[in-house]
Amino acid sequence: MTHTILSSPTKEVVIGFDRPFVMIGERINPTGRKLLAEEMKNGDFSRVEADAIAQVEAGAQMLDVNAGIPLADEPALLARAIQLVQGITDVPLSIDSSIIDALERGLSVYKGKALVNSVTGEDESLDRVLPLVKKYGAAVVAISNDETGISMDPNVRFAVAKKIVERAADHGIHYSDVVVDPLVMPIGALGQAGQQAFTLIRRLREELKVNTTCGASNVSFGLPNRNQVTGTFLSMAMASGMTSAIMSPLHPEVKAAIMAADVLTGNDQDCAAWIKANRDPNAPTGGRGDREGRRRRSAQ
Amino acid sequence: MTHTILSSPTKEVVIGFDRPFVMIGERINPTGRKLLAEEMKNGDFSRVEADAIAQVEAGAQMLDVNAGIPLADEPALLARAIQLVQGITDVPLSIDSSIIDALERGLSVYKGKALVNSVTGEDESLDRVLPLVKKYGAAVVAISNDETGISMDPNVRFAVAKKIVERAADHGIHYSDVVVDPLVMPIGALGQAGQQAFTLIRRLREELKVNTTCGASNVSFGLPNRNQVTGTFLSMAMASGMTSAIMSPLHPEVKAAIMAADVLTGNDQDCAAWIKANRDPNAPTGGRGDREGRRRRSAQ
Repeated sequence: MTHTILSSPTKEVVIGFDRPFVMIGERINPTGRKLLAEEMKNGDFSRVEADAIAQVEAGAQMLDVNAGIPLADEPALLARAIQLVQGITDVPLSIDSSIIDALERGLSVYKGKALVNSVTGEDESLDRVLPLVKKYGAAVVAISNDETGISMDPNVRFAVAKKIVERAADHGIHYSDVVVDPLVMPIGALGQAGQQAFTLIRRLREELKVNTTCGASNVSFGLPNRNQVTGTFLSMAMASGMTSAIMSPLHPEVKAAIMAADVLTGNDQDCAAWIKANRDPNAPTGGRGDREGRRRRSAQ
Repeated sequence: MTHTILSSPTKEVVIGFDRPFVMIGERINPTGRKLLAEEMKNGDFSRVEADAIAQVEAGAQMLDVNAGIPLADEPALLARAIQLVQGITDVPLSIDSSIIDALERGLSVYKGKALVNSVTGEDESLDRVLPLVKKYGAAVVAISNDETGISMDPNVRFAVAKKIVERAADHGIHYSDVVVDPLVMPIGALGQAGQQAFTLIRRLREELKVNTTCGASNVSFGLPNRNQVTGTFLSMAMASGMTSAIMSPLHPEVKAAIMAADVLTGNDQDCAAWIKANRDPNAPTGGRGDREGRRRRSAQ
Protein backbone atom coordinates (compact mmCIF):
# COMPACT_ATOMS: atom_id res chain seq x y z
CA MET A 1 0.00 0.00 0.00
CA THR A 2 1.58 3.29 -1.14
CA HIS A 3 1.73 5.97 1.56
CA THR A 4 2.96 9.50 0.88
CA ILE A 5 3.77 10.96 4.28
CA LEU A 6 3.90 14.76 4.73
CA SER A 7 4.46 16.57 7.99
CA SER A 8 4.58 19.80 9.94
CA PRO A 9 6.45 19.95 13.27
CA THR A 10 3.38 18.60 15.05
CA LYS A 11 1.24 16.82 12.47
CA GLU A 12 1.59 14.02 9.96
CA VAL A 13 -0.70 13.55 6.96
CA VAL A 14 -0.75 10.33 4.95
CA ILE A 15 -1.95 10.24 1.35
CA GLY A 16 -2.83 6.65 0.51
CA PHE A 17 -5.23 4.27 -1.21
CA ASP A 18 -6.54 3.14 2.18
CA ARG A 19 -6.84 6.62 3.70
CA PRO A 20 -9.47 9.36 3.58
CA PHE A 21 -9.00 11.67 0.59
CA VAL A 22 -6.57 14.53 1.28
CA MET A 23 -7.83 18.03 0.45
CA ILE A 24 -4.96 20.42 -0.22
CA GLY A 25 -6.37 23.95 0.12
CA GLU A 26 -5.68 25.98 -3.03
CA ARG A 27 -6.64 29.48 -1.88
CA ILE A 28 -3.22 30.91 -0.98
CA ASN A 29 -2.36 31.74 -4.56
CA PRO A 30 -2.22 35.26 -6.01
CA THR A 31 -2.79 34.03 -9.55
CA GLY A 32 -6.00 35.69 -10.68
CA ARG A 33 -6.45 37.35 -7.26
CA LYS A 34 -5.38 40.93 -7.93
CA LEU A 35 -6.02 42.24 -4.43
CA LEU A 36 -4.11 39.41 -2.76
CA ALA A 37 -1.20 39.88 -5.18
CA GLU A 38 -1.05 43.61 -4.41
CA GLU A 39 -1.17 43.03 -0.66
CA MET A 40 1.50 40.32 -0.65
CA LYS A 41 3.79 42.45 -2.79
CA ASN A 42 3.42 45.24 -0.21
CA GLY A 43 4.21 42.91 2.66
CA ASP A 44 0.63 42.59 3.88
CA PHE A 45 -0.01 38.90 4.59
CA SER A 46 -3.25 39.30 6.55
CA ARG A 47 -5.34 37.72 3.78
CA VAL A 48 -2.88 34.83 3.50
CA GLU A 49 -3.34 34.18 7.21
CA ALA A 50 -7.14 34.44 7.00
CA ASP A 51 -7.21 32.07 4.02
CA ALA A 52 -5.01 29.60 5.87
CA ILE A 53 -7.25 29.53 8.92
CA ALA A 54 -10.50 29.39 6.94
CA GLN A 55 -9.33 26.46 4.83
CA VAL A 56 -8.09 24.43 7.79
CA GLU A 57 -11.35 25.10 9.62
CA ALA A 58 -13.23 23.88 6.54
CA GLY A 59 -11.33 20.60 6.69
CA ALA A 60 -8.23 21.02 4.48
CA GLN A 61 -5.64 18.50 5.70
CA MET A 62 -2.87 20.38 3.84
CA LEU A 63 -2.44 23.84 2.30
CA ASP A 64 -0.81 24.84 -0.96
CA VAL A 65 1.21 28.08 -0.74
CA ASN A 66 2.00 30.02 -3.92
CA ALA A 67 3.53 33.51 -4.17
CA GLY A 68 3.78 33.82 -7.95
CA ILE A 69 3.50 37.58 -8.50
CA PRO A 70 4.99 39.20 -11.62
CA LEU A 71 7.93 41.54 -10.92
CA ALA A 72 8.01 40.63 -7.22
CA ASP A 73 10.75 38.86 -5.26
CA GLU A 74 8.97 35.50 -5.35
CA PRO A 75 11.57 33.51 -3.34
CA ALA A 76 11.38 35.99 -0.45
CA LEU A 77 7.59 36.26 -0.56
CA LEU A 78 7.14 32.48 -0.68
CA ALA A 79 9.50 31.94 2.26
CA ARG A 80 7.70 34.60 4.28
CA ALA A 81 4.25 33.17 3.48
CA ILE A 82 5.38 29.68 4.48
CA GLN A 83 6.75 30.89 7.79
CA LEU A 84 3.60 32.83 8.56
CA VAL A 85 1.29 29.95 7.65
CA GLN A 86 3.38 27.48 9.66
CA GLY A 87 3.14 29.91 12.59
CA ILE A 88 -0.67 29.82 12.72
CA THR A 89 -1.67 26.36 11.45
CA ASP A 90 -0.33 22.86 12.04
CA VAL A 91 -1.05 21.26 8.65
CA PRO A 92 1.74 20.22 6.27
CA LEU A 93 2.24 22.49 3.25
CA SER A 94 2.64 22.15 -0.46
CA ILE A 95 5.31 24.61 -1.69
CA ASP A 96 4.09 25.84 -5.04
CA SER A 97 6.26 27.63 -7.59
CA SER A 98 7.61 27.29 -11.10
CA ILE A 99 10.74 29.18 -9.99
CA ILE A 100 13.46 26.85 -8.73
CA ASP A 101 14.99 29.48 -6.43
CA ALA A 102 11.60 30.05 -4.83
CA LEU A 103 11.17 26.31 -4.21
CA GLU A 104 14.60 26.18 -2.59
CA ARG A 105 13.99 29.22 -0.39
CA GLY A 106 10.64 27.78 0.62
CA LEU A 107 12.15 24.40 1.44
CA SER A 108 14.97 25.99 3.41
CA VAL A 109 12.55 27.64 5.86
CA TYR A 110 9.93 24.86 5.95
CA LYS A 111 9.67 22.81 9.12
CA GLY A 112 8.74 19.19 8.48
CA LYS A 113 8.36 17.17 5.27
CA ALA A 114 6.85 19.30 2.51
CA LEU A 115 5.22 18.52 -0.81
CA VAL A 116 7.06 20.31 -3.63
CA ASN A 117 4.62 21.52 -6.32
CA SER A 118 5.88 20.67 -8.90
CA VAL A 119 8.21 18.89 -11.28
CA THR A 120 7.29 18.28 -14.94
CA GLY A 121 8.68 15.79 -17.44
CA GLU A 122 10.89 18.48 -18.98
CA ASP A 123 14.58 17.68 -18.59
CA GLU A 124 15.42 21.04 -17.08
CA SER A 125 12.70 20.67 -14.47
CA LEU A 126 13.74 17.10 -13.65
CA ASP A 127 17.41 18.03 -13.39
CA ARG A 128 16.80 21.00 -11.10
CA VAL A 129 13.77 20.06 -8.98
CA LEU A 130 14.51 16.43 -8.15
CA PRO A 131 17.87 17.15 -6.43
CA LEU A 132 16.10 19.71 -4.26
CA VAL A 133 13.37 17.23 -3.34
CA LYS A 134 16.04 14.72 -2.39
CA LYS A 135 18.18 17.25 -0.50
CA TYR A 136 15.29 18.37 1.71
CA GLY A 137 13.70 14.92 2.06
CA ALA A 138 10.45 16.20 0.55
CA ALA A 139 7.79 14.62 -1.65
CA VAL A 140 6.89 16.04 -5.06
CA VAL A 141 3.92 16.58 -7.36
CA ALA A 142 4.72 15.27 -10.84
CA ILE A 143 2.86 16.96 -13.67
CA SER A 144 2.49 14.80 -16.74
CA ASN A 145 3.59 17.23 -19.42
CA ASP A 146 7.00 17.67 -21.02
CA GLU A 147 8.82 19.77 -23.63
CA THR A 148 6.11 18.98 -26.16
CA GLY A 149 3.39 20.44 -23.90
CA ILE A 150 0.32 18.64 -22.57
CA SER A 151 -0.50 15.71 -24.80
CA MET A 152 -4.17 15.12 -25.63
CA ASP A 153 -3.29 11.40 -25.70
CA PRO A 154 -3.57 9.97 -22.16
CA ASN A 155 -1.10 7.23 -23.08
CA VAL A 156 1.53 9.90 -23.68
CA ARG A 157 0.66 11.54 -20.34
CA PHE A 158 1.06 8.13 -18.67
CA ALA A 159 4.46 7.69 -20.33
CA VAL A 160 5.59 11.11 -19.07
CA ALA A 161 4.46 10.24 -15.54
CA LYS A 162 6.37 6.96 -15.75
CA LYS A 163 9.49 8.79 -16.89
CA ILE A 164 9.27 11.20 -13.93
CA VAL A 165 8.84 8.34 -11.44
CA GLU A 166 11.88 6.59 -12.95
CA ARG A 167 14.01 9.74 -12.88
CA ALA A 168 12.98 10.33 -9.27
CA ALA A 169 14.18 6.81 -8.46
CA ASP A 170 17.53 7.66 -10.09
CA HIS A 171 17.77 10.52 -7.59
CA GLY A 172 16.95 8.19 -4.70
CA ILE A 173 13.34 9.36 -4.37
CA HIS A 174 10.93 6.49 -3.74
CA TYR A 175 7.78 6.33 -5.89
CA SER A 176 5.71 6.76 -2.75
CA ASP A 177 7.12 10.31 -2.60
CA VAL A 178 5.90 11.13 -6.12
CA VAL A 179 2.26 12.25 -6.36
CA VAL A 180 1.22 12.36 -10.01
CA ASP A 181 -1.11 14.99 -11.46
CA PRO A 182 -2.71 13.46 -14.57
CA LEU A 183 -3.75 16.95 -15.79
CA VAL A 184 -7.51 17.23 -16.02
CA MET A 185 -8.90 19.29 -18.92
CA PRO A 186 -12.12 21.32 -18.82
CA ILE A 187 -14.98 18.94 -19.66
CA GLY A 188 -16.83 21.76 -21.42
CA ALA A 189 -14.04 21.98 -23.97
CA LEU A 190 -13.20 18.27 -24.26
CA GLY A 191 -16.01 15.75 -23.76
CA GLN A 192 -13.52 12.92 -23.19
CA ALA A 193 -11.66 14.77 -20.41
CA GLY A 194 -13.44 12.85 -17.64
CA GLN A 195 -13.02 9.35 -19.09
CA GLN A 196 -9.39 10.15 -19.95
CA ALA A 197 -8.72 11.23 -16.38
CA PHE A 198 -10.45 8.19 -14.85
CA THR A 199 -8.54 5.77 -17.07
CA LEU A 200 -5.23 7.52 -16.42
CA ILE A 201 -5.78 7.65 -12.64
CA ARG A 202 -6.54 3.92 -12.63
CA ARG A 203 -3.39 3.12 -14.64
CA LEU A 204 -1.24 5.35 -12.43
CA ARG A 205 -2.50 3.48 -9.39
CA GLU A 206 -2.41 -0.05 -10.79
CA GLU A 207 0.76 0.13 -12.90
CA LEU A 208 2.93 2.78 -11.22
CA LYS A 209 1.33 2.35 -7.76
CA VAL A 210 1.57 6.09 -7.13
CA ASN A 211 -0.73 8.49 -5.35
CA THR A 212 -2.45 11.10 -7.50
CA THR A 213 -3.66 14.67 -7.23
CA CYS A 214 -5.06 17.34 -9.52
CA GLY A 215 -6.18 20.92 -9.66
CA ALA A 216 -9.81 19.92 -9.34
CA SER A 217 -11.73 23.04 -10.28
CA ASN A 218 -10.30 23.12 -13.81
CA VAL A 219 -12.66 20.35 -14.91
CA SER A 220 -15.77 22.52 -14.51
CA PHE A 221 -14.36 25.66 -16.14
CA GLY A 222 -17.03 27.55 -18.09
CA LEU A 223 -20.02 25.51 -16.91
CA PRO A 224 -22.94 26.63 -14.75
CA ASN A 225 -23.26 25.17 -11.22
CA ARG A 226 -19.52 24.47 -11.24
CA ASN A 227 -19.27 23.16 -7.69
CA GLN A 228 -21.65 20.28 -8.42
CA VAL A 229 -19.57 19.31 -11.46
CA THR A 230 -16.30 19.59 -9.52
CA GLY A 231 -17.62 17.58 -6.56
CA THR A 232 -19.07 14.87 -8.80
CA PHE A 233 -15.80 14.72 -10.74
CA LEU A 234 -13.83 14.25 -7.53
CA SER A 235 -16.05 11.39 -6.34
CA MET A 236 -15.74 9.69 -9.75
CA ALA A 237 -11.96 10.21 -9.69
CA MET A 238 -11.91 8.68 -6.19
CA ALA A 239 -13.79 5.63 -7.53
CA SER A 240 -10.96 5.40 -10.06
CA GLY A 241 -8.30 5.65 -7.35
CA MET A 242 -7.43 9.35 -6.91
CA THR A 243 -6.16 10.06 -3.40
CA SER A 244 -5.80 13.87 -3.11
CA ALA A 245 -6.63 17.14 -4.85
CA ILE A 246 -5.53 20.76 -4.78
CA MET A 247 -8.88 22.45 -4.35
CA SER A 248 -11.01 24.83 -2.36
CA PRO A 249 -12.46 23.14 0.74
CA LEU A 250 -14.87 26.04 1.15
CA HIS A 251 -17.70 24.79 -1.12
CA PRO A 252 -20.18 22.57 0.77
CA GLU A 253 -21.23 20.60 -2.36
CA VAL A 254 -17.62 19.66 -3.10
CA LYS A 255 -16.85 18.78 0.49
CA ALA A 256 -20.02 16.68 0.85
CA ALA A 257 -19.20 14.73 -2.34
CA ILE A 258 -15.69 13.96 -1.06
CA MET A 259 -16.91 12.91 2.38
CA ALA A 260 -19.60 10.66 0.88
CA ALA A 261 -17.02 9.20 -1.51
CA ASP A 262 -14.75 8.44 1.47
CA VAL A 263 -17.67 6.47 2.93
CA LEU A 264 -18.12 4.60 -0.36
CA THR A 265 -14.43 3.75 -0.87
CA GLY A 266 -14.51 2.29 2.64
CA ASN A 267 -11.90 4.82 3.84
CA ASP A 268 -14.19 6.56 6.33
CA GLN A 269 -13.95 3.84 8.97
CA ASP A 270 -17.43 2.86 10.23
CA CYS A 271 -18.74 6.00 8.42
CA ALA A 272 -17.69 7.84 11.57
CA ALA A 273 -16.73 11.17 9.96
CA TRP A 274 -19.88 11.12 7.82
CA ILE A 275 -22.19 10.43 10.75
CA LYS A 276 -20.47 13.08 12.88
CA ALA A 277 -20.63 15.75 10.17
CA ASN A 278 -24.24 15.03 9.33
CA ARG A 279 -25.62 14.66 12.82
CA ASP A 280 -24.19 17.91 14.16
CA PRO A 281 -25.98 20.84 12.51
CA ASN A 282 -23.22 23.18 13.70
CA ALA A 283 -20.50 21.21 11.97
CA PRO A 284 -18.62 23.38 9.46
CA THR A 285 -19.03 20.73 6.78
CA GLY A 286 -21.79 18.40 5.74
CA GLY A 287 -24.20 20.24 7.98
CA ARG A 288 -25.88 22.05 5.13
CA GLY A 289 -26.91 18.84 3.41
CA ASP A 290 -28.04 17.48 6.73
CA ARG A 291 -30.24 20.38 7.63
CA GLU A 292 -31.88 20.11 4.23
CA GLY A 293 -32.31 16.38 4.78
CA ARG A 294 -33.95 17.06 8.13
CA ARG A 295 -36.32 19.57 6.66
CA ARG A 296 -37.33 17.09 4.02
CA ARG A 297 -37.71 14.25 6.45
CA SER A 298 -39.79 16.27 8.84
CA ALA A 299 -41.96 17.44 5.94
CA GLN A 300 -42.84 13.88 4.94
CA MET B 1 -21.17 -0.94 -28.09
CA THR B 2 -23.90 -2.74 -26.12
CA HIS B 3 -27.36 -1.19 -26.46
CA THR B 4 -30.37 -2.44 -24.52
CA ILE B 5 -33.40 -1.06 -26.34
CA LEU B 6 -36.73 -0.76 -24.51
CA SER B 7 -39.88 0.75 -25.93
CA SER B 8 -43.44 1.92 -25.44
CA PRO B 9 -45.76 2.33 -28.44
CA THR B 10 -44.34 5.82 -29.04
CA LYS B 11 -40.95 5.99 -27.36
CA GLU B 12 -37.66 4.13 -27.44
CA VAL B 13 -35.08 4.23 -24.63
CA VAL B 14 -31.53 2.96 -25.11
CA ILE B 15 -29.40 1.86 -22.18
CA GLY B 16 -25.78 1.93 -23.28
CA PHE B 17 -22.18 2.80 -22.40
CA ASP B 18 -22.34 5.78 -24.76
CA ARG B 19 -25.76 7.04 -23.63
CA PRO B 20 -26.96 9.22 -20.76
CA PHE B 21 -27.67 7.21 -17.62
CA VAL B 22 -31.19 5.74 -17.54
CA MET B 23 -33.20 6.43 -14.38
CA ILE B 24 -35.90 3.81 -13.86
CA GLY B 25 -38.42 5.29 -11.40
CA GLU B 26 -38.89 2.98 -8.41
CA ARG B 27 -41.90 4.57 -6.72
CA ILE B 28 -44.73 2.38 -8.07
CA ASN B 29 -44.10 -0.39 -5.58
CA PRO B 30 -46.37 -1.18 -2.61
CA THR B 31 -43.53 -2.84 -0.65
CA GLY B 32 -43.21 -0.80 2.52
CA ARG B 33 -45.94 1.62 1.38
CA LYS B 34 -48.95 0.49 3.40
CA LEU B 35 -51.37 3.10 2.08
CA LEU B 36 -50.50 2.41 -1.55
CA ALA B 37 -50.85 -1.33 -0.97
CA GLU B 38 -54.28 -0.87 0.60
CA GLU B 39 -55.48 1.37 -2.21
CA MET B 40 -54.24 -0.91 -5.00
CA LYS B 41 -55.84 -3.92 -3.35
CA ASN B 42 -59.14 -2.01 -3.32
CA GLY B 43 -58.85 -1.08 -6.96
CA ASP B 44 -57.83 2.54 -6.34
CA PHE B 45 -54.90 3.32 -8.67
CA SER B 46 -54.95 7.10 -8.30
CA ARG B 47 -51.66 7.13 -6.37
CA VAL B 48 -50.08 4.87 -8.99
CA GLU B 49 -51.05 7.36 -11.65
CA ALA B 50 -49.80 10.33 -9.65
CA ASP B 51 -46.48 8.57 -8.95
CA ALA B 52 -46.12 7.75 -12.64
CA ILE B 53 -46.62 11.34 -13.73
CA ALA B 54 -44.42 12.83 -10.99
CA GLN B 55 -41.51 10.53 -11.79
CA VAL B 56 -41.65 11.16 -15.53
CA GLU B 57 -41.84 14.91 -14.90
CA ALA B 58 -38.77 14.60 -12.67
CA GLY B 59 -36.85 13.00 -15.52
CA ALA B 60 -37.32 9.22 -15.21
CA GLN B 61 -36.76 7.71 -18.67
CA MET B 62 -38.45 4.46 -17.58
CA LEU B 63 -40.74 3.36 -14.74
CA ASP B 64 -40.66 0.18 -12.70
CA VAL B 65 -44.13 -1.20 -11.89
CA ASN B 66 -44.57 -3.61 -8.99
CA ALA B 67 -47.84 -4.87 -7.48
CA GLY B 68 -46.52 -7.27 -4.86
CA ILE B 69 -49.19 -7.19 -2.18
CA PRO B 70 -49.64 -10.14 0.18
CA LEU B 71 -52.92 -12.04 -0.26
CA ALA B 72 -53.88 -9.97 -3.33
CA ASP B 73 -54.34 -11.14 -6.92
CA GLU B 74 -50.92 -9.89 -8.01
CA PRO B 75 -51.16 -10.91 -11.69
CA ALA B 76 -54.41 -8.99 -12.13
CA LEU B 77 -53.19 -5.93 -10.17
CA LEU B 78 -49.90 -5.81 -12.07
CA ALA B 79 -51.64 -6.04 -15.45
CA ARG B 80 -54.07 -3.31 -14.45
CA ALA B 81 -51.29 -1.02 -13.16
CA ILE B 82 -49.29 -1.49 -16.38
CA GLN B 83 -52.31 -0.65 -18.55
CA LEU B 84 -53.07 2.46 -16.52
CA VAL B 85 -49.48 3.70 -16.52
CA GLN B 86 -49.15 3.05 -20.25
CA GLY B 87 -52.34 5.06 -20.71
CA ILE B 88 -50.96 8.21 -19.13
CA THR B 89 -47.20 8.14 -19.82
CA ASP B 90 -45.11 7.26 -22.85
CA VAL B 91 -42.00 5.81 -21.15
CA PRO B 92 -41.09 2.12 -21.42
CA LEU B 93 -41.76 0.05 -18.30
CA SER B 94 -39.95 -2.45 -16.15
CA ILE B 95 -42.37 -5.22 -15.12
CA ASP B 96 -41.41 -6.14 -11.58
CA SER B 97 -42.50 -9.30 -9.80
CA SER B 98 -41.14 -12.45 -8.25
CA ILE B 99 -44.32 -14.28 -9.33
CA ILE B 100 -43.97 -15.85 -12.78
CA ASP B 101 -47.71 -15.66 -13.50
CA ALA B 102 -47.66 -11.94 -12.71
CA LEU B 103 -44.75 -11.37 -15.09
CA GLU B 104 -46.61 -13.23 -17.83
CA ARG B 105 -49.88 -11.34 -17.28
CA GLY B 106 -47.94 -8.08 -17.28
CA LEU B 107 -46.09 -8.96 -20.47
CA SER B 108 -49.32 -10.05 -22.16
CA VAL B 109 -50.89 -6.60 -21.77
CA TYR B 110 -47.70 -4.53 -22.23
CA LYS B 111 -47.38 -2.56 -25.47
CA GLY B 112 -43.80 -2.33 -26.69
CA LYS B 113 -40.57 -3.97 -25.52
CA ALA B 114 -40.51 -4.26 -21.75
CA LEU B 115 -37.78 -4.88 -19.20
CA VAL B 116 -38.62 -7.95 -17.09
CA ASN B 117 -37.53 -7.50 -13.48
CA SER B 118 -36.10 -10.03 -12.78
CA VAL B 119 -34.43 -13.38 -13.26
CA THR B 120 -31.95 -14.78 -10.72
CA GLY B 121 -29.29 -17.47 -11.08
CA GLU B 122 -31.59 -20.05 -9.50
CA ASP B 123 -32.46 -22.86 -11.91
CA GLU B 124 -36.20 -22.53 -11.36
CA SER B 125 -36.07 -18.81 -12.11
CA LEU B 126 -33.91 -19.31 -15.21
CA ASP B 127 -36.12 -22.12 -16.52
CA ARG B 128 -39.35 -20.17 -16.07
CA VAL B 129 -38.44 -16.52 -16.67
CA LEU B 130 -36.12 -16.78 -19.67
CA PRO B 131 -38.71 -18.49 -21.95
CA LEU B 132 -41.14 -15.67 -21.12
CA VAL B 133 -38.55 -13.03 -21.94
CA LYS B 134 -37.90 -14.75 -25.28
CA LYS B 135 -41.59 -15.29 -26.05
CA TYR B 136 -42.45 -11.62 -25.59
CA GLY B 137 -39.21 -10.25 -27.06
CA ALA B 138 -38.39 -8.44 -23.85
CA ALA B 139 -35.14 -7.60 -22.05
CA VAL B 140 -34.43 -8.80 -18.51
CA VAL B 141 -32.76 -7.70 -15.29
CA ALA B 142 -30.41 -10.45 -14.07
CA ILE B 143 -29.85 -10.50 -10.32
CA SER B 144 -26.56 -12.08 -9.33
CA ASN B 145 -27.73 -14.43 -6.60
CA ASP B 146 -28.62 -18.12 -6.81
CA GLU B 147 -29.84 -21.03 -4.66
CA THR B 148 -27.05 -20.33 -2.16
CA GLY B 149 -28.28 -16.76 -1.61
CA ILE B 150 -26.29 -13.56 -2.15
CA SER B 151 -22.59 -14.30 -1.98
CA MET B 152 -20.41 -11.82 -0.09
CA ASP B 153 -17.67 -12.72 -2.60
CA PRO B 154 -17.98 -10.49 -5.68
CA ASN B 155 -16.23 -13.15 -7.77
CA VAL B 156 -19.09 -15.52 -7.03
CA ARG B 157 -21.62 -12.80 -7.93
CA PHE B 158 -19.74 -12.30 -11.21
CA ALA B 159 -19.87 -16.04 -11.90
CA VAL B 160 -23.63 -16.10 -11.29
CA ALA B 161 -24.10 -13.16 -13.67
CA LYS B 162 -22.03 -14.97 -16.30
CA LYS B 163 -24.14 -18.09 -15.88
CA ILE B 164 -27.35 -16.10 -16.39
CA VAL B 165 -25.99 -14.42 -19.54
CA GLU B 166 -24.99 -17.84 -20.91
CA ARG B 167 -28.36 -19.39 -20.11
CA ALA B 168 -30.09 -16.44 -21.73
CA ALA B 169 -28.02 -17.07 -24.87
CA ASP B 170 -29.19 -20.72 -24.80
CA HIS B 171 -32.74 -19.35 -24.95
CA GLY B 172 -31.86 -17.11 -27.88
CA ILE B 173 -31.65 -13.92 -25.78
CA HIS B 174 -28.71 -11.71 -26.77
CA TYR B 175 -26.47 -10.41 -23.97
CA SER B 176 -27.49 -6.88 -24.90
CA ASP B 177 -30.97 -7.79 -23.59
CA VAL B 178 -29.61 -8.83 -20.19
CA VAL B 179 -29.08 -5.97 -17.72
CA VAL B 180 -27.14 -7.23 -14.70
CA ASP B 181 -27.80 -6.07 -11.14
CA PRO B 182 -24.56 -6.64 -9.17
CA LEU B 183 -26.47 -6.36 -5.87
CA VAL B 184 -25.23 -3.42 -3.84
CA MET B 185 -25.09 -3.89 -0.06
CA PRO B 186 -25.62 -1.12 2.52
CA ILE B 187 -22.26 0.62 3.02
CA GLY B 188 -23.10 1.22 6.67
CA ALA B 189 -23.12 -2.52 7.27
CA LEU B 190 -20.29 -3.52 4.92
CA GLY B 191 -17.44 -1.05 4.41
CA GLN B 192 -16.30 -2.87 1.27
CA ALA B 193 -19.73 -2.67 -0.40
CA GLY B 194 -18.76 0.29 -2.59
CA GLN B 195 -15.43 -1.04 -3.82
CA GLN B 196 -17.00 -4.46 -4.42
CA ALA B 197 -19.74 -2.88 -6.52
CA PHE B 198 -17.33 -0.71 -8.53
CA THR B 199 -15.04 -3.66 -9.29
CA LEU B 200 -17.96 -5.90 -10.21
CA ILE B 201 -19.58 -3.26 -12.45
CA ARG B 202 -16.27 -2.80 -14.29
CA ARG B 203 -15.85 -6.56 -14.81
CA LEU B 204 -19.45 -6.93 -16.00
CA ARG B 205 -18.85 -4.21 -18.57
CA GLU B 206 -15.37 -5.25 -19.69
CA GLU B 207 -15.70 -9.03 -19.60
CA LEU B 208 -19.42 -9.72 -20.20
CA LYS B 209 -20.05 -6.42 -22.07
CA VAL B 210 -23.47 -6.10 -20.43
CA ASN B 211 -25.39 -3.09 -19.21
CA THR B 212 -25.92 -2.84 -15.47
CA THR B 213 -28.52 -1.54 -13.04
CA CYS B 214 -29.15 -1.64 -9.30
CA GLY B 215 -31.60 -0.65 -6.62
CA ALA B 216 -29.60 2.44 -5.76
CA SER B 217 -31.04 3.59 -2.45
CA ASN B 218 -30.01 0.37 -0.67
CA VAL B 219 -26.40 1.55 -0.45
CA SER B 220 -27.21 4.40 1.96
CA PHE B 221 -29.54 2.44 4.24
CA GLY B 222 -29.24 3.54 7.87
CA LEU B 223 -27.02 6.58 7.24
CA PRO B 224 -27.84 10.27 7.75
CA ASN B 225 -28.13 12.51 4.66
CA ARG B 226 -28.91 9.42 2.57
CA ASN B 227 -29.54 11.23 -0.69
CA GLN B 228 -26.00 12.62 -0.78
CA VAL B 229 -24.59 9.13 -0.25
CA THR B 230 -26.89 7.60 -2.87
CA GLY B 231 -26.11 10.31 -5.44
CA THR B 232 -22.36 10.08 -4.84
CA PHE B 233 -22.56 6.29 -5.09
CA LEU B 234 -24.33 6.54 -8.43
CA SER B 235 -21.73 8.92 -9.88
CA MET B 236 -18.92 6.62 -8.70
CA ALA B 237 -20.74 3.60 -10.16
CA MET B 238 -21.10 5.53 -13.44
CA ALA B 239 -17.33 6.14 -13.44
CA SER B 240 -17.02 2.36 -13.15
CA GLY B 241 -19.42 1.78 -16.05
CA MET B 242 -22.95 1.49 -14.60
CA THR B 243 -25.59 2.51 -17.14
CA SER B 244 -28.95 2.55 -15.30
CA ALA B 245 -30.53 2.33 -11.86
CA ILE B 246 -33.91 1.63 -10.32
CA MET B 247 -34.27 4.66 -8.10
CA SER B 248 -36.33 7.65 -7.11
CA PRO B 249 -35.84 10.57 -9.51
CA LEU B 250 -37.51 12.90 -7.01
CA HIS B 251 -34.43 13.81 -4.92
CA PRO B 252 -32.57 16.84 -6.34
CA GLU B 253 -29.16 15.80 -4.90
CA VAL B 254 -29.38 12.41 -6.57
CA LYS B 255 -30.58 13.83 -9.87
CA ALA B 256 -27.87 16.51 -9.89
CA ALA B 257 -25.13 13.93 -9.24
CA ILE B 258 -26.36 11.78 -12.14
CA MET B 259 -26.61 14.73 -14.51
CA ALA B 260 -23.12 15.95 -13.59
CA ALA B 261 -21.79 12.41 -13.99
CA ASP B 262 -23.36 12.26 -17.48
CA VAL B 263 -21.34 15.40 -18.28
CA LEU B 264 -18.17 13.79 -16.93
CA THR B 265 -18.60 10.46 -18.74
CA GLY B 266 -18.97 12.49 -21.94
CA ASN B 267 -22.51 11.17 -22.46
CA ASP B 268 -24.24 14.55 -22.10
CA GLN B 269 -23.30 15.77 -25.57
CA ASP B 270 -21.81 19.30 -25.42
CA CYS B 271 -23.05 19.43 -21.78
CA ALA B 272 -26.38 20.47 -23.34
CA ALA B 273 -28.69 18.89 -20.75
CA TRP B 274 -26.55 20.23 -17.90
CA ILE B 275 -26.48 23.76 -19.23
CA LYS B 276 -30.22 23.71 -19.92
CA ALA B 277 -31.11 22.37 -16.47
CA ASN B 278 -28.83 24.80 -14.68
CA ARG B 279 -29.63 27.93 -16.64
CA ASP B 280 -33.41 27.69 -16.35
CA PRO B 281 -34.44 28.26 -12.74
CA ASN B 282 -37.90 26.86 -13.51
CA ALA B 283 -36.50 23.56 -14.75
CA PRO B 284 -37.86 20.65 -12.72
CA THR B 285 -34.34 19.28 -12.25
CA GLY B 286 -31.00 20.78 -11.46
CA GLY B 287 -32.64 24.09 -10.79
CA ARG B 288 -32.17 23.88 -7.05
CA GLY B 289 -28.40 23.66 -7.30
CA ASP B 290 -28.43 26.44 -9.82
CA ARG B 291 -30.44 28.83 -7.73
CA GLU B 292 -28.08 28.22 -4.84
CA GLY B 293 -25.15 28.80 -7.16
CA ARG B 294 -26.67 32.08 -8.26
CA ARG B 295 -27.25 33.20 -4.71
CA ARG B 296 -23.65 32.45 -3.90
CA ARG B 297 -22.38 34.17 -7.00
CA SER B 298 -24.46 37.25 -6.45
CA ALA B 299 -23.34 37.36 -2.81
CA GLN B 300 -19.67 37.50 -3.77
